[in-house]
Amino acid sequence: MVSIGIDLGGTNIKAALVDKKKGFIHSISIPTHADLGKEHVFDRIALAVKELLEEQSITPIGIGMGLPGMVSLDRQTVKNPPNLPGWKVENVSKEIEKRTGLNCVIENDANLAALGSARYGAGKKMESFIMITLGTGVGGGIIYKNKIYRGTSGMAGELGHVIINYHGPLSNSNTRGGIEAYLGQRFLSRFAADTIRQHSDNPLYKKFHKNFESLEPVDLHNAAENGNSLAADILRQAGEKLGYAIVNYVHILDIRKIVVSGGVAKAGKWIFEPAYETASKYLMPPFREDFEIVYESLGNEAALLGAASLAFEELR
Amino acid sequence: MVSIGIDLGGTNIKAALVDKKKGFIHSISIPTHADLGKEHVFDRIALAVKELLEEQSITPIGIGMGLPGMVSLDRQTVKNPPNLPGWKVENVSKEIEKRTGLNCVIENDANLAALGSARYGAGKKMESFIMITLGTGVGGGIIYKNKIYRGTSGMAGELGHVIINYHGPLSNSNTRGGIEAYLGQRFLSRFAADTIRQHSDNPLYKKFHKNFESLEPVDLHNAAENGNSLAADILRQAGEKLGYAIVNYVHILDIRKIVVSGGVAKAGKWIFEPAYETASKYLMPPFREDFEIVYESLGNEAALLGAASLAFEELR
Repeated sequence: MVSIGIDLGGTNIKAALVDKKKGFIHSISIPTHADLGKEHVFDRIALAVKELLEEQSITPIGIGMGLPGMVSLDRQTVKNPPNLPGWKVENVSKEIEKRTGLNCVIENDANLAALGSARYGAGKKMESFIMITLGTGVGGGIIYKNKIYRGTSGMAGELGHVIINYHGPLSNSNTRGGIEAYLGQRFLSRFAADTIRQHSDNPLYKKFHKNFESLEPVDLHNAAENGNSLAADILRQAGEKLGYAIVNYVHILDIRKIVVSGGVAKAGKWIFEPAYETASKYLMPPFREDFEIVYESLGNEAALLGAASLAFEELR
Repeated sequence: MVSIGIDLGGTNIKAALVDKKKGFIHSISIPTHADLGKEHVFDRIALAVKELLEEQSITPIGIGMGLPGMVSLDRQTVKNPPNLPGWKVENVSKEIEKRTGLNCVIENDANLAALGSARYGAGKKMESFIMITLGTGVGGGIIYKNKIYRGTSGMAGELGHVIINYHGPLSNSNTRGGIEAYLGQRFLSRFAADTIRQHSDNPLYKKFHKNFESLEPVDLHNAAENGNSLAADILRQAGEKLGYAIVNYVHILDIRKIVVSGGVAKAGKWIFEPAYETASKYLMPPFREDFEIVYESLGNEAALLGAASLAFEELR
């Protein structure tokens, strides 16, 4: 069985032809041109589908598409998606079906990243898990009993906006002291820069002091691997914050498998180990059983595979 | 249809005969004698059932029982329940069935309070809601799509141990800065006493300074109602903390109906209004739609009615 997975972002439309058993057959990426308006974007998606199917003899069962924003419970309509100017409440499924002749279901992209992990990645062996995506922002998706936990309006799993310190710093949203304000890439880099500035003898200062903007979590990771204890300490503090947030997720949801994805997660054990230690310390004892934090290596492909999986599960 | 609901606590066994449509027919309460060991407690429960059915011509369909601790997914076995010394992993259902001849299912008492609210209380009109119990401790239960959301091991909804300030005070568990450390009755009373001690001209100081132990949330409520701005301020601060915790519940679960129960909740609007304001401020905009905080007036009866409801739903 073959379906099309689409990941619609503000910058690019990624599309893939996916075999249910074997995974990716073929994938492409084209610019979204979001500024040209929604009708144009719908046309671009149809174009991506057409390109994807060129010289392919397979007929896909349909299209699953991930996009930012609040998706209706019937998985047809999206409401005010960020990064897609001019979109209000749009029946995306209908627009795509009209243009491609293929059935289409949509879902929030963070939820689909979790579904992709559940079907093709680190979450494959887990019946239930919490996926945390540490990227520019901090997002998440919840898989409960092998399905996306959606909540009452499809918005569940806004994990980046879970408060761990109500006195804490602001982030992109109006939440204060949310985990995104500590681990979102921009915030982590800023915290790192502020810390490194106080240590002008540190190799990281020498390397970045003219351009702290270019400092990325992977630089901290590499420095820590090379024995730079300041870098290790910065990542440890970030990991501890993640640990507090995980305590909150686990105490509410009673799901003890944590799958972490995204650019910041590439800092690996330097973040994961302090996160695990902090969470283990503050979790109530029964929740420590089977508690686990694992890395999802699928990266951006998780959302695309999740989109294709949605088509397999909703359109068969 | 009639069932028996039981609320097993460390101090008392409450039991009620409940008509599915009409609610309570008859209820009793006997001491648990928990210190005499589990076999004795099982016998006491059977005694309560016998007393309850005396001079009743009705045959109940079975027994639903709430108790503290972690209940297995098949709703038969409890693990290390607090306040019941000597209990380890116990198949309570089997023990009660053996002694009463009636089928028995068990569930965590906080979850049953939520179920009771869903079937007979403030939650009746809501398909999904989060129940927060503000008592000695802070507990909770989650109703999602008309059912108890149980998590992977029946432990979901440990709402009191959700961190809102990782620098914050300790509470009964090993969590730091959890909402229980601010709103658990003992903690709130202590905070109130510390504040009032600094205001020796306040009527509350005059009334309680010889015995701050006896100060209860209802005293703060009454003082606030009588125009005592210090009391109102103490409750406002508590309400704000509750608001932060609610932000966390809602962002994770996407459930926007909050039902609050328990002794501390009797402070009413003096806690609820600042909780609502704070949560509304820090919730992401889409989550503010349909957001609501309501008071559950069933009190301790919620758990008993929930226990009876469990029997109706699991034993028919």
